[in-house]
Amino acid sequence: MTEAIELLEKFRAGRISRDKVVRAFQAAPLADLGFAQVDTHRALRKGFPEVIFGAGKTPVQVVKIAAKIYEHEQRLLVTRITPEHARALRKKFKVAVHHELPRCVTIERKPLRKRPGTIAVLCAGTSDLPVAEEAAVTADIMGNRVERIYDVGVAGLHRLLSRLELIQSANVVVVVAGMEGALPSVVAGLVSRPVIAVPTSVGYGANFGGITALLGMLTSCGSGVTVVNIDNGFGAGYAASQINALVAASSK
Amino acid sequence: MTEAIELLEKFRAGRISRDKVVRAFQAAPLADLGFAQVDTHRALRKGFPEVIFGAGKTPVQVVKIAAKIYEHEQRLLVTRITPEHARALRKKFKVAVHHELPRCVTIERKPLRKRPGTIAVLCAGTSDLPVAEEAAVTADIMGNRVERIYDVGVAGLHRLLSRLELIQSANVVVVVAGMEGALPSVVAGLVSRPVIAVPTSVGYGANFGGITALLGMLTSCGSGVTVVNIDNGFGAGYAASQINALVAASSK
Amino acid sequence: MTEAIELLEKFRAGRISRDKVVRAFQAAPLADLGFAQVDTHRALRKGFPEVIFGAGKTPVQVVKIAAKIYEHEQRLLVTRITPEHARALRKKFKVAVHHELPRCVTIERKPLRKRPGTIAVLCAGTSDLPVAEEAAVTADIMGNRVERIYDVGVAGLHRLLSRLELIQSANVVVVVAGMEGALPSVVAGLVSRPVIAVPTSVGYGANFGGITALLGMLTSCGSGVTVVNIDNGFGAGYAASQINALVAASSK
Amino acid sequence: MTEAIELLEKFRAGRISRDKVVRAFQAAPLADLGFAQVDTHRALRKGFPEVIFGAGKTPVQVVKIAAKIYEHEQRLLVTRITPEHARALRKKFKVAVHHELPRCVTIERKPLRKRPGTIAVLCAGTSDLPVAEEAAVTADIMGNRVERIYDVGVAGLHRLLSRLELIQSANVVVVVAGMEGALPSVVAGLVSRPVIAVPTSVGYGANFGGITALLGMLTSCGSGVTVVNIDNGFGAGYAASQINALVAASSK
Amino acid sequence: MTEAIELLEKFRAGRISRDKVVRAFQAAPLADLGFAQVDTHRALRKGFPEVIFGAGKTPVQVVKIAAKIYEHEQRLLVTRITPEHARALRKKFKVAVHHELPRCVTIERKPLRKRPGTIAVLCAGTSDLPVAEEAAVTADIMGNRVERIYDVGVAGLHRLLSRLELIQSANVVVVVAGMEGALPSVVAGLVSRPVIAVPTSVGYGANFGGITALLGMLTSCGSGVTVVNIDNGFGAGYAASQINALVAASSK
Amino acid sequence: MTEAIELLEKFRAGRISRDKVVRAFQAAPLADLGFAQVDTHRALRKGFPEVIFGAGKTPVQVVKIAAKIYEHEQRLLVTRITPEHARALRKKFKVAVHHELPRCVTIERKPLRKRPGTIAVLCAGTSDLPVAEEAAVTADIMGNRVERIYDVGVAGLHRLLSRLELIQSANVVVVVAGMEGALPSVVAGLVSRPVIAVPTSVGYGANFGGITALLGMLTSCGSGVTVVNIDNGFGAGYAASQINALVAASSK
Amino acid sequence: MTEAIELLEKFRAGRISRDKVVRAFQAAPLADLGFAQVDTHRALRKGFPEVIFGAGKTPVQVVKIAAKIYEHEQRLLVTRITPEHARALRKKFKVAVHHELPRCVTIERKPLRKRPGTIAVLCAGTSDLPVAEEAAVTADIMGNRVERIYDVGVAGLHRLLSRLELIQSANVVVVVAGMEGALPSVVAGLVSRPVIAVPTSVGYGANFGGITALLGMLTSCGSGVTVVNIDNGFGAGYAASQINALVAASSK
Amino acid sequence: MTEAIELLEKFRAGRISRDKVVRAFQAAPLADLGFAQVDTHRALRKGFPEVIFGAGKTPVQVVKIAAKIYEHEQRLLVTRITPEHARALRKKFKVAVHHELPRCVTIERKPLRKRPGTIAVLCAGTSDLPVAEEAAVTADIMGNRVERIYDVGVAGLHRLLSRLELIQSANVVVVVAGMEGALPSVVAGLVSRPVIAVPTSVGYGANFGGITALLGMLTSCGSGVTVVNIDNGFGAGYAASQINALVAASSK
Repeated sequence: MTEAIELLEKFRAGRISRDKVVRAFQAAPLADLGFAQVDTHRALRKGFPEVIFGAGKTPVQVVKIAAKIYEHEQRLLVTRITPEHARALRKKFKVAVHHELPRCVTIERKPLRKRPGTIAVLCAGTSDLPVAEEAAVTADIMGNRVERIYDVGVAGLHRLLSRLELIQSANVVVVVAGMEGALPSVVAGLVSRPVIAVPTSVGYGANFGGITALLGMLTSCGSGVTVVNIDNGFGAGYAASQINALVAASSK
Repeated sequence: MTEAIELLEKFRAGRISRDKVVRAFQAAPLADLGFAQVDTHRALRKGFPEVIFGAGKTPVQVVKIAAKIYEHEQRLLVTRITPEHARALRKKFKVAVHHELPRCVTIERKPLRKRPGTIAVLCAGTSDLPVAEEAAVTADIMGNRVERIYDVGVAGLHRLLSRLELIQSANVVVVVAGMEGALPSVVAGLVSRPVIAVPTSVGYGANFGGITALLGMLTSCGSGVTVVNIDNGFGAGYAASQINALVAASSK
Repeated sequence: MTEAIELLEKFRAGRISRDKVVRAFQAAPLADLGFAQVDTHRALRKGFPEVIFGAGKTPVQVVKIAAKIYEHEQRLLVTRITPEHARALRKKFKVAVHHELPRCVTIERKPLRKRPGTIAVLCAGTSDLPVAEEAAVTADIMGNRVERIYDVGVAGLHRLLSRLELIQSANVVVVVAGMEGALPSVVAGLVSRPVIAVPTSVGYGANFGGITALLGMLTSCGSGVTVVNIDNGFGAGYAASQINALVAASSK
Repeated sequence: MTEAIELLEKFRAGRISRDKVVRAFQAAPLADLGFAQVDTHRALRKGFPEVIFGAGKTPVQVVKIAAKIYEHEQRLLVTRITPEHARALRKKFKVAVHHELPRCVTIERKPLRKRPGTIAVLCAGTSDLPVAEEAAVTADIMGNRVERIYDVGVAGLHRLLSRLELIQSANVVVVVAGMEGALPSVVAGLVSRPVIAVPTSVGYGANFGGITALLGMLTSCGSGVTVVNIDNGFGAGYAASQINALVAASSK
Repeated sequence: MTEAIELLEKFRAGRISRDKVVRAFQAAPLADLGFAQVDTHRALRKGFPEVIFGAGKTPVQVVKIAAKIYEHEQRLLVTRITPEHARALRKKFKVAVHHELPRCVTIERKPLRKRPGTIAVLCAGTSDLPVAEEAAVTADIMGNRVERIYDVGVAGLHRLLSRLELIQSANVVVVVAGMEGALPSVVAGLVSRPVIAVPTSVGYGANFGGITALLGMLTSCGSGVTVVNIDNGFGAGYAASQINALVAASSK
Repeated sequence: MTEAIELLEKFRAGRISRDKVVRAFQAAPLADLGFAQVDTHRALRKGFPEVIFGAGKTPVQVVKIAAKIYEHEQRLLVTRITPEHARALRKKFKVAVHHELPRCVTIERKPLRKRPGTIAVLCAGTSDLPVAEEAAVTADIMGNRVERIYDVGVAGLHRLLSRLELIQSANVVVVVAGMEGALPSVVAGLVSRPVIAVPTSVGYGANFGGITALLGMLTSCGSGVTVVNIDNGFGAGYAASQINALVAASSK
Repeated sequence: MTEAIELLEKFRAGRISRDKVVRAFQAAPLADLGFAQVDTHRALRKGFPEVIFGAGKTPVQVVKIAAKIYEHEQRLLVTRITPEHARALRKKFKVAVHHELPRCVTIERKPLRKRPGTIAVLCAGTSDLPVAEEAAVTADIMGNRVERIYDVGVAGLHRLLSRLELIQSANVVVVVAGMEGALPSVVAGLVSRPVIAVPTSVGYGANFGGITALLGMLTSCGSGVTVVNIDNGFGAGYAASQINALVAASSK
Repeated sequence: MTEAIELLEKFRAGRISRDKVVRAFQAAPLADLGFAQVDTHRALRKGFPEVIFGAGKTPVQVVKIAAKIYEHEQRLLVTRITPEHARALRKKFKVAVHHELPRCVTIERKPLRKRPGTIAVLCAGTSDLPVAEEAAVTADIMGNRVERIYDVGVAGLHRLLSRLELIQSANVVVVVAGMEGALPSVVAGLVSRPVIAVPTSVGYGANFGGITALLGMLTSCGSGVTVVNIDNGFGAGYAASQINALVAASSK
């Protein structure tokens, strides 16, 4: 916003023409003019910087982008990486941590102090673990306490019911499931907190790479279930963190 | 088979030529020759005659076909009817019963004695009732005791769990559900008996007229779940009756 | 829970056998045993009772269910109704309000005191209004302040940008859009709060009754967008209210 | 159930408080409380233990899970394995048998005595063999006599008709077919026993990896056909065994 | 072709310039130049004139087009008509015949002498009759003997097998079926003549308005089956007539 | 832009504070600040005002919106209307013209002078006429000369080839076709000008309401074909006019 | 048929019982009883033996099946082979010919004398060649003269039109095309003979592996086009040969 | 055309018969007769020769075709190549340039003089670069100035808005985007020039390999957006060049 103010002062001082001011406001990035995007940006920056989507980028590209962001930031998340990406990042950043299962890397100057309130991450089967862990690692690096509750699929209800108290005590519940994706419906019937459902591509045949789980979650009979893209653990972790951060901010 | 035997006797008696026998065996309906189809037919006839699918037939056509079958049979099922079909059938057959919800008519000279063993018909929500009732009426007229357990969807698990004993005591469990179709997965985890899942077209948007429920049931994480077409309560009731009849036959 | 306690006291007093206690715990609805579902239930009841989905029910059925719920509750929401449903409900309940555009009825003994914090409901075009209003009415009756920001589609960005401050000040943003469903992506880039996207069936041809908008929202490049079913304004309003209630509860 | 009884006795003896009992019933796994799941479990255990789905697990993981289950069980089935899984399992378990075509491993302390009654497994073409064998091996290890009737597709009807007697004498008929999946319809017209249809991904082009066969089976004109997921030989064998076991139990 | 010859003669006679000839050849309809299209046209005209697709045209439009074609032609086929179309056509053309089931009208100055050789039209169920009749009427008016063999679906094989001789004696076999569309596969295994398969939209649920039957026929395991669009009885009758006409022409 | 200038002058004159200027730039609609949107707007306004999409709006709403736009504009286009819309518009605006086939209304104070250069609108069959006319009427009211070349489908190539010169002389070619949508491919091989393809929903069965034509056009082997939504004659006419206007502007 | 006759004679001679005759007719393969299948078989055998579909079979399996068929037959076709299959077949059969492009092998004791009449095989682009060659090789080995007319796609109409006479002189026309699959529509408008369309998987994006070409051909505006599965050159060649053989048989 | 003229002169001179002339006009390639295709061809040739689609061709084939075209042409474009294709082409043609990102090769005797007016190529993210570059390289070699404006996706609107002036000054705007494909809608609202949208296959899950972006662009709320196939950068560059060439031709 400083830039906008300077511009106006120069104009009042007669050092630049009116036309120049108008053109500047037109041409300059909105961010430089103090518009809302900037506030958003700043708010985000305080919370968490841009996340690097590793898929389709070379290790060199990923390291370069990471280095640029890390100049100004305290922490960094790189998702959908290959082992090559991980090696390159760990060579460059001594503090880089490679999370093998969810295929991501986190880099932190010093760990963020965790917010009060937990985010519960549930998954139906062991093959859903990579996606569940992507959600968990995302929520963790964004400053949240994460409670992992894995292998609680609906085919053996007692596994889920026996951990109900833990689930009900979370602020947000992320539910990861493949195949028919029934778990979020059952969970939504048992808790009053926001449930974010993540379909996975686990399954075969009529599962169609996760479409069946996705559609099942979208048509869930449980009220208040919202859904992210197939295998999008990151998106669910991010949305859960937005909610938990909002709660934490209000409780101050 | 009588026909085949007569033919052979006439041949042995020299009253018909060898060629005529061969041609008869070739040309005649297999049924008349005592082939397997006939056994099947007879077996079916003892159990239940041909079912009339009312959709796309005029009331006059349906009544004619019903009358022809009823000449030789003790009972009759007409499915997917309109009120016009029902009126026409009740005018012709005094004993005809119109089942409004499942849109079918049953006609029985005298009620069949029920087999031992029950078929449980579950449904998730009240809007699944017409399909559940089609399954129940089909199983009933085919000579089975039917236990209706309705409105036990997974969004309120206690409704299901509180009636578990009843469900577990059935020989076969028919589970009817629309929307995401999660109920069969949960039920299959709780019982050791055959579970037949029926997806319904209940829902909207990403439910796609029942496709989502269908796919969810096909990819169910519960072992041993088999599935029929969308809204095909009749098919599920029929398959359940086949299983229950087999059990009853073996127990004699 | 009283029931469970009574049971145990009778057992201690020797008036019932141990077996009876065990069987009661097995057979009784979980709710009666004080399990988690009950807590959920109670929590929900404090917030909002069961919502009646009108589609596929007769006016008589809807009125009966509504009357039963209203015995114990302070307020009621009936969604997806026809004018016939509305007439029947207004005849029975003098305080019933018919919301024509979103096709729902609300019934309240006395208005709920609104929580602090607002839920912003945006929509892209005027034809998305019925779905947007369903979200707004749902959020309103559940005790939230709702800010309606309509007709701000991406084809005329200035309409959206000029109301950015208002959007950014909300706790949760519900974004309703049909056709290509691009609005949530743009909004998610401008705010740091949870964004719940609602695809509508508005459009024709390759819109496929809302599938295109749905898929577009699921694959949004904006981080943290979660999605509900096509035309599911109720679900979005419900989820938004869950988040806002959580925030309000924490701020006390 | 012992646990529940002990708890109640301690309570009667005054050694624990009433609150503690209530809380225990709430928190403990349902299984420990003697609920239905336990019965199911026990029933299953008597019949067959948990089956390991090998796909997506490492050989080490599969061996560990197998070892744990095998501690308490007499037999074991591992499906969807690679040759690496097979090698690891055979190294650990001397009695492990690798079924190469259906890609599964069975481990048995001593063979189960077979039930009376047979399960017929039919397939349309030689390329459907792996799926048919998965059904056959599953039914076999679960204690059933299996009659394999292969390469009897509808394009050469005499192959099927010449083996009709054998098919008709089975208690359950599993029918495996790819391409247009017409075989179950023809078989269902010839037998009165339950027919379980298994679509395979055999084919190309408009077969869409088995979708065409799946849809064809779901819309079969043959009454009583139920269907499992594409290539799900295991599911069909499991469901067939459930039916056959039920029949056998009743005949005692 | 006369036009082209006249042009050249005028050019030779020096009455028009060379440029004019070249331009005429460029601009004139190919038909006028004696190109293949004209031969095709003439050949078709000898066999059958343009067919009027009634759907989406007003009765007035259909009558006008019919009148124009009938000026030069001996016979006429109008398909996909409503009763209004039929009434308007019968008012205008005394000899018009309204075929109610297949919704078409034929108009003939005098009946065409039938070719030797028959076209067999089979259908699986009675609800496939309208499509089968469209094929039959089309083949008939194009000058072919048609053998109708209806209600011979695969669920009761004996119906088909008992009429096999009749089917095998035809030059071309049109096979009409809905639901899973299995009939053409079975027929193709029993005859050596060209089989043209017509999927119908008969069925519900996973039949998807005929898509399942269409896909089943395209992936048929029977060699030599070719397929037309869903409900396209006309196309099948037309293609069958092309083949039969070719055979008849060769046999002279 | 006047508003922005006034603001700055007031600021220079000391009549408003610096903060107020900054906030005004942030809050005011971008249009008022002279940003690009305004230029676009102005450019569009010179060419053509906002088009009203009638579908889903009441006649009253449409008339109100039309009246508001018509205050500032010389001409108006309302698309996708019903006869009721047309009646209401013609009652309000004496000069309104109802185009029945393409279901739209145009209102013009005085006809726009046509640009040099023509837009050719082709269609394959007579049932594609409504969509073709929507394109033609749109291009016409936007100030273009339109050449209509109808009923030139690829099944009778000579119809197309005989009018080739006319097609080749146009600046832009809009090609409308249903069924398999092959016409744009053939046309693109014959002309060097931009070809805009419009799939229509004309057809049945495997046409899937225009999807087949749409996909065929997208995968056209003809270079340079671009495509709009199914039945979107308006979009094609609009895009064609944008190109033709650009050409006309350059030729001045 | 001899078998059936012998049986009857033995029965007349009193050497076997009546029951035995009946059972024999029931149990024996229909083929042995002189039913139609046998005639079909014989007719086919005179024309062409069973074709081996190589995909999914090992080289050893293919060689074994080939050797068994070749015992009784004069010629053999193996389709969808790998180079390994080809090598194994050529090692076993000295006269085996490997057709690399269409990935098939033919084996002939001595070449079949060709029928009169030709089958034209057209393809749109050079990448459609493998499928077109599969059709051509199939038609050739089945005893037909084949005219190959390649690279005549609709984007350059003159290529097609310049070879029209050749196309029109064929008895049957096989048209192979990928992408939008428009060629059969254009060809069907130019010839009066049966047109068999073969969609190929050539293309990318919205071609969906040949689905677009398939749908385009099914909805072709050209009358009388019939269609086979994606990439099914064999099926088209086979159907074309059936037609051509029928014509040749009639002309004798 | 010379050939046509010679023919006519020979005819006038009496050296050939009238019949021969007529037959020649019928049989000869249209191109040789001076029909429209030739004009198109010539027009294209002046602009740009046939483009070689490398996918599915061997390096040898591609080099041969390239060499043949290059005999008569000044420049050449080969798309969808592998590194092997590139190596072979660079070995043969010293001036060949390998564009690695968009996987194409250009060969030019001497660079074409650029037309006035620019084509703007925008893309949403860095992973869309290969497709955007294919559009840019195509437009460039066809003689256009190209303005590349990359990484301006809607999730960070300021990036797009800050470069608006540059975008608005282009004659044509090509907009490349994957995921939900929202960018063209936003751009179309900001510019008055033709917008050509290119969906890319960038994304995962519900992106379905670019289908979501494709559908989103087809249903764009921005007027005048036309769309090409998924990943078809070449088609967009080609169409954009056609428009720009038309503008340039008119401005002379």
